[in-house]
Amino acid sequence: MTGSRPSVWIQDLTWEEVDSYLQHDRIAIVPVGSTEQHGPAGVLGVDTYVAITLAEDVAERTGVLVAPPIWYGDSSHHGGFPGTITIRPDTLTLLIRDVARSLARHGFDRIILLNGHKGSNLPALNSAVRVLHDEELPQVLFAVADPLHLARSSAPTIKETNEHHAGELELSHVHYRYPGKIRTDRLTDASVDFDEVFGGFVGNDLFGPAPDGVEIIWSGDEQRAFTPTGSFSSSLGLSEEKGKRYHDHIVTRLAELVEWLRGYHGPIGKPSDG
Amino acid sequence: MTGSRPSVWIQDLTWEEVDSYLQHDRIAIVPVGSTEQHGPAGVLGVDTYVAITLAEDVAERTGVLVAPPIWYGDSSHHGGFPGTITIRPDTLTLLIRDVARSLARHGFDRIILLNGHKGSNLPALNSAVRVLHDEELPQVLFAVADPLHLARSSAPTIKETNEHHAGELELSHVHYRYPGKIRTDRLTDASVDFDEVFGGFVGNDLFGPAPDGVEIIWSGDEQRAFTPTGSFSSSLGLSEEKGKRYHDHIVTRLAELVEWLRGYHGPIGKPSDG
Amino acid sequence: MTGSRPSVWIQDLTWEEVDSYLQHDRIAIVPVGSTEQHGPAGVLGVDTYVAITLAEDVAERTGVLVAPPIWYGDSSHHGGFPGTITIRPDTLTLLIRDVARSLARHGFDRIILLNGHKGSNLPALNSAVRVLHDEELPQVLFAVADPLHLARSSAPTIKETNEHHAGELELSHVHYRYPGKIRTDRLTDASVDFDEVFGGFVGNDLFGPAPDGVEIIWSGDEQRAFTPTGSFSSSLGLSEEKGKRYHDHIVTRLAELVEWLRGYHGPIGKPSDG
Amino acid sequence: MTGSRPSVWIQDLTWEEVDSYLQHDRIAIVPVGSTEQHGPAGVLGVDTYVAITLAEDVAERTGVLVAPPIWYGDSSHHGGFPGTITIRPDTLTLLIRDVARSLARHGFDRIILLNGHKGSNLPALNSAVRVLHDEELPQVLFAVADPLHLARSSAPTIKETNEHHAGELELSHVHYRYPGKIRTDRLTDASVDFDEVFGGFVGNDLFGPAPDGVEIIWSGDEQRAFTPTGSFSSSLGLSEEKGKRYHDHIVTRLAELVEWLRGYHGPIGKPSDG
Amino acid sequence: MTGSRPSVWIQDLTWEEVDSYLQHDRIAIVPVGSTEQHGPAGVLGVDTYVAITLAEDVAERTGVLVAPPIWYGDSSHHGGFPGTITIRPDTLTLLIRDVARSLARHGFDRIILLNGHKGSNLPALNSAVRVLHDEELPQVLFAVADPLHLARSSAPTIKETNEHHAGELELSHVHYRYPGKIRTDRLTDASVDFDEVFGGFVGNDLFGPAPDGVEIIWSGDEQRAFTPTGSFSSSLGLSEEKGKRYHDHIVTRLAELVEWLRGYHGPIGKPSDG
Amino acid sequence: MTGSRPSVWIQDLTWEEVDSYLQHDRIAIVPVGSTEQHGPAGVLGVDTYVAITLAEDVAERTGVLVAPPIWYGDSSHHGGFPGTITIRPDTLTLLIRDVARSLARHGFDRIILLNGHKGSNLPALNSAVRVLHDEELPQVLFAVADPLHLARSSAPTIKETNEHHAGELELSHVHYRYPGKIRTDRLTDASVDFDEVFGGFVGNDLFGPAPDGVEIIWSGDEQRAFTPTGSFSSSLGLSEEKGKRYHDHIVTRLAELVEWLRGYHGPIGKPSDG
Repeated sequence: MTGSRPSVWIQDLTWEEVDSYLQHDRIAIVPVGSTEQHGPAGVLGVDTYVAITLAEDVAERTGVLVAPPIWYGDSSHHGGFPGTITIRPDTLTLLIRDVARSLARHGFDRIILLNGHKGSNLPALNSAVRVLHDEELPQVLFAVADPLHLARSSAPTIKETNEHHAGELELSHVHYRYPGKIRTDRLTDASVDFDEVFGGFVGNDLFGPAPDGVEIIWSGDEQRAFTPTGSFSSSLGLSEEKGKRYHDHIVTRLAELVEWLRGYHGPIGKPSDG
Repeated sequence: MTGSRPSVWIQDLTWEEVDSYLQHDRIAIVPVGSTEQHGPAGVLGVDTYVAITLAEDVAERTGVLVAPPIWYGDSSHHGGFPGTITIRPDTLTLLIRDVARSLARHGFDRIILLNGHKGSNLPALNSAVRVLHDEELPQVLFAVADPLHLARSSAPTIKETNEHHAGELELSHVHYRYPGKIRTDRLTDASVDFDEVFGGFVGNDLFGPAPDGVEIIWSGDEQRAFTPTGSFSSSLGLSEEKGKRYHDHIVTRLAELVEWLRGYHGPIGKPSDG
Repeated sequence: MTGSRPSVWIQDLTWEEVDSYLQHDRIAIVPVGSTEQHGPAGVLGVDTYVAITLAEDVAERTGVLVAPPIWYGDSSHHGGFPGTITIRPDTLTLLIRDVARSLARHGFDRIILLNGHKGSNLPALNSAVRVLHDEELPQVLFAVADPLHLARSSAPTIKETNEHHAGELELSHVHYRYPGKIRTDRLTDASVDFDEVFGGFVGNDLFGPAPDGVEIIWSGDEQRAFTPTGSFSSSLGLSEEKGKRYHDHIVTRLAELVEWLRGYHGPIGKPSDG
Repeated sequence: MTGSRPSVWIQDLTWEEVDSYLQHDRIAIVPVGSTEQHGPAGVLGVDTYVAITLAEDVAERTGVLVAPPIWYGDSSHHGGFPGTITIRPDTLTLLIRDVARSLARHGFDRIILLNGHKGSNLPALNSAVRVLHDEELPQVLFAVADPLHLARSSAPTIKETNEHHAGELELSHVHYRYPGKIRTDRLTDASVDFDEVFGGFVGNDLFGPAPDGVEIIWSGDEQRAFTPTGSFSSSLGLSEEKGKRYHDHIVTRLAELVEWLRGYHGPIGKPSDG
Repeated sequence: MTGSRPSVWIQDLTWEEVDSYLQHDRIAIVPVGSTEQHGPAGVLGVDTYVAITLAEDVAERTGVLVAPPIWYGDSSHHGGFPGTITIRPDTLTLLIRDVARSLARHGFDRIILLNGHKGSNLPALNSAVRVLHDEELPQVLFAVADPLHLARSSAPTIKETNEHHAGELELSHVHYRYPGKIRTDRLTDASVDFDEVFGGFVGNDLFGPAPDGVEIIWSGDEQRAFTPTGSFSSSLGLSEEKGKRYHDHIVTRLAELVEWLRGYHGPIGKPSDG
Repeated sequence: MTGSRPSVWIQDLTWEEVDSYLQHDRIAIVPVGSTEQHGPAGVLGVDTYVAITLAEDVAERTGVLVAPPIWYGDSSHHGGFPGTITIRPDTLTLLIRDVARSLARHGFDRIILLNGHKGSNLPALNSAVRVLHDEELPQVLFAVADPLHLARSSAPTIKETNEHHAGELELSHVHYRYPGKIRTDRLTDASVDFDEVFGGFVGNDLFGPAPDGVEIIWSGDEQRAFTPTGSFSSSLGLSEEKGKRYHDHIVTRLAELVEWLRGYHGPIGKPSDG
């Protein structure tokens, strides 16, 4: 469906090729990840690889374009582990606004921020585009997408254990799409006793039932104290098959989002011509 | 349980009275709300009243102190309705950091940000304290609390219909605690067809099952287009009884949080002495 | 004169009620205070209570609306005393600009910033609106009001001693309007020898003659060194009667300001139709 | 009294000469002015020349050093007149903080910000150093000086008419110190009717009695409407003699300030050793 | 020389693998590029690919690590062409500072910012690290590297024509390392007459003699006016061989830099132990 | 050629005189310098004096106007020497933007930023105006000028030794124009061995051949370690004659720039009417 495009990636097209695209479509996906520890088995780029592969595959399927990936996110809570590179949420917010302004200048008017860093980047992404849309770019429809919400229905049917940072599903996903990026000889069992650490106010399964809870903020140093390996939940159940089911479900849902955006004759509140 | 304190509110104490408190306790609650439209029936201050009454009651029950309320939040999406006063998330973030720095200077080392503006302030609050805790105030344990998460288990058992902005539960809550603040002759039925407006990617019940979704950003003007009354869900089922059950559940849970914080010998990851 | 308004406070009105107001009037008052030590007798909220009561009464008298109060101001110089919560002037400036932008969006075009924190917030308030009016909101007439200037003529006739922070007039004012907020058993005599501390360059009476002086900047810790009680001048002369005279004078003058603003057909420099 | 210093100006010394100074003294003056219209007779640099000449003379008399002048201030209200160059108060604040940090790094610990731009720069200067002193540079004693306050007692005895922007005293001052900078053939009579423009809420004499007033914010365009010449008050009474008396009074008072600072064994609150 | 490292890229290592590296080496390279038009033949990612390939190869050769690439730079002057995504220099500066802070936290103390976006990012990179090194990270030695300066001696011997944006050398370089990224059927001859456009004040050869000149700032729209194809100089001479010679020269020089940094026992000014 | 202007300096003109100028010309020069150590012989203001004298002379010759000088620049690398006053590049950037906005408001549409602080201010100046021109002031043509580039052809023919900070040419220049500002009894021989300090990656002659190099960032403290006198290269060859030749060359080239700007009918890319 990508037609004659040499690539789904803007960085791999010339300006004339992007110009051609803009004659018939105006959707862009911006993949946002992080560079942060993912336990003994996961490479530091796991979150960005998640964003990249999802963006790439939905773009292949639907024919939209993808902007170059943002490899850095808000990872201060993982900063106690070597290799984690965190940027302040304030910085990420400014970065996203600049990228969106440039895309809008060229006529892109539906922008999907696709976050691979489950949850943690969402405050900055959300803050970035709420103000931008309200004050500067009313003509651009922004959607903020995250596997955490896109896989709500399917994740519980795929995974076999509690899923948290560097868990079974996340690592299976990257393992499926990027064989070799997961050190399969370093998978770990769960290592955080959430009730002991967080008193029952924080759930241990991102896709499971949550307690009547609050958000507890912890620093990188504190994290290293409660999980010296960096692992939050078991990754022993890793499999290519789980990764594939999880990946396909999200890509399919993102493709539906793209189709809906294509048919949308906004602004929001005036969705259709009919 | 408040002992001899003349008030739970810091603004109603002298500095010597706060000094006395700090001899035996170091917890503070900061109520954060908004000034934004809540349909034909709800006053603009609904969210702040929610934060105020929850803070006040849990403080009464547990003996902790409450900082003066923040009446302004991130409400750009309601800005199309007269009276809504929104501040940029970047501004709210700076404000929260300054307030927390002052509290920390005096020795408060467990700070609960209590958000009454369900959801919408969370990105700014979260961004504010993550950086602050990691870079400047490692000694302060921050918890970000919101009825949305504290009432997860009870809300579905109390409400009779979908609950969204200015819905049955929210208005019942304020009606119960502040009789007269809700115009009971102006209650409305649901007025947003979420599937038509958001294509099935956004749920219509903050306490109910959610779709495999994304976050769609809308402006104040767009909101006014899709809900000319400002109402998102039915408030016809408003009752003092519902408000009471909802309120009591959250206060009880917050009181448990306070007790847990009191016993916590952090930093996080080193929860207990035993 | 408030007609059928259920309240002078925007937070206690629905958006439709604010909309009605805007059909006939476009003035808003924004009360700005502080949370800072006011000696052994005054509660920490004294400045905000001053702003609130003045705003409320002038609004009752003239029929204008009041935005929710800002409880935090620039109080770094009081930061050595427990309970003082200070925000940076830069933060206060951003906050004021956001609030003003929202009011302007709805059509409010005469905004009175009513400062209860005598003097100390004025730099931030002034900086906030000068740029805003010149660059963004030329259509809005801003007035920055402070008891320090509004009571110039009357204060000297009411007070019996030098008036400085937490002095006789300030505490009488709050005592008159909010009985119980002043600990009348903890009134203090003057405790700062201004000439010794400030070398004759700073006056000890905010409403009295001032020396050929300069502004000396002191920190919270320094303040605690030169006034261990937090008191600057005697509050022994506190009386309800003084508070009433002071309050009534300022409210009357503010009411005159409101009337003048109503008749003003700006922009400034083109005041009248005649 | 300047000893062997080749100059009072830091920019006219080598680093070794500044180093010598710091062996025995630690006071610096930072002159801050503006570039803004001063009516048909005054050059745009009037305010900066005021700051420069006062700084220079007090430094000559007392032997302290002066930092290079800041020629730009917060002059948005004069921006309607060609040649006015205004910087945002936020920018001035950052600039002052950086300059102060550098001075403090070298050991200067008493810094006088000497404002020649009567009043208008004070909010930014004040905001700059309050935070800086409280959070970063507790060891530096900051004084913010302005002719408006230093000449309180003498100005009324010198001038013959109301003194406001570009008035008799200000222009006499520059005329006395910089012959030729005032176009004496372009002196003007008063041209603003303050009561008509500001309704009696703003005084027309910076050194005279003021009404029970407020601060009204006006833009550069509005100013040009109410005073097409840029003049606020009469400069017809200009004389070298008046300039001299005004200048000498302020320099003398500043010299007293320098002496007091030299003897101060702060921090504030611990003024003396005795 | 990379020993047992699975990759030179931090994002492709686990935190434990980075930890191992830090036991014996503390150098990191941060590749910074841009996403901007490079004429009809060059893809938008040319600059980032330059930074990536140089970083990767010098890391392979010397055994140091590379942080994930930054795909966005300061490209406002190319913003008139579809696909160009520019971030403000202020944003890039904040981003670089955050990345450097994270690296420094883990013990990296020699950081090479490797810019592939010839020239245009240098102001932001330079501003970012000058302040950072002076105020926050004195222990980190920063080097800012750019092909423009690293290839000074060799570029003139390789290229056959004037080299400017999207010129022969730049495209040969990417063509050599990433076959297929250059549309060899869309190479163009020079299209900007520098003397006509810039009056002789701007040179047309980044590696050639320059006039007695100044920097002229142009916008994206202006650029499109003076070079409708986006090409500045001829790329007709593109060849793999030129790309190889250029690449090898720079990689060799960067490797020498790495070796020098390894032996440096700073801080700067104390280069050696001997 | 200055016609009847009383001065080339805006600060020495009244607003009416600037208004007259704007009837026939729209060029302004903004001199930017620094206050930083220039070795035992040079005063701290050397860079600003360079900017001032060049601006003044080219303005005299061509009849354009000059804005008041900016005495502070980005000098953190000299901050280890008493008297150096550095401002952050971020601050300088904001300052330049504000000054440019004011000039543009009055109709100046060709602005030359004339930097006397060779090199070090360029990142901030460049960052300031690139964004400004692209986003806010498309109608203003900005040129950033520096002796480093304007004297490319002549400097090597004048100087007799390597020229770096506080070198022969720089000091000759100020000595020629401001006799007495250079302590001719304190001239020094070269004191930095660039190869030892910078490993051959940094050139020791700003006007000579440069190595295949990188930019190494050093702090003020580090600088003091590698050049305890503050001198980088020999100033023993100082002469008035060299200063004159250098000065005249640059002024002539700047005058050519002014003439070119006068004839330019931009925007850039549309240079001429013909």
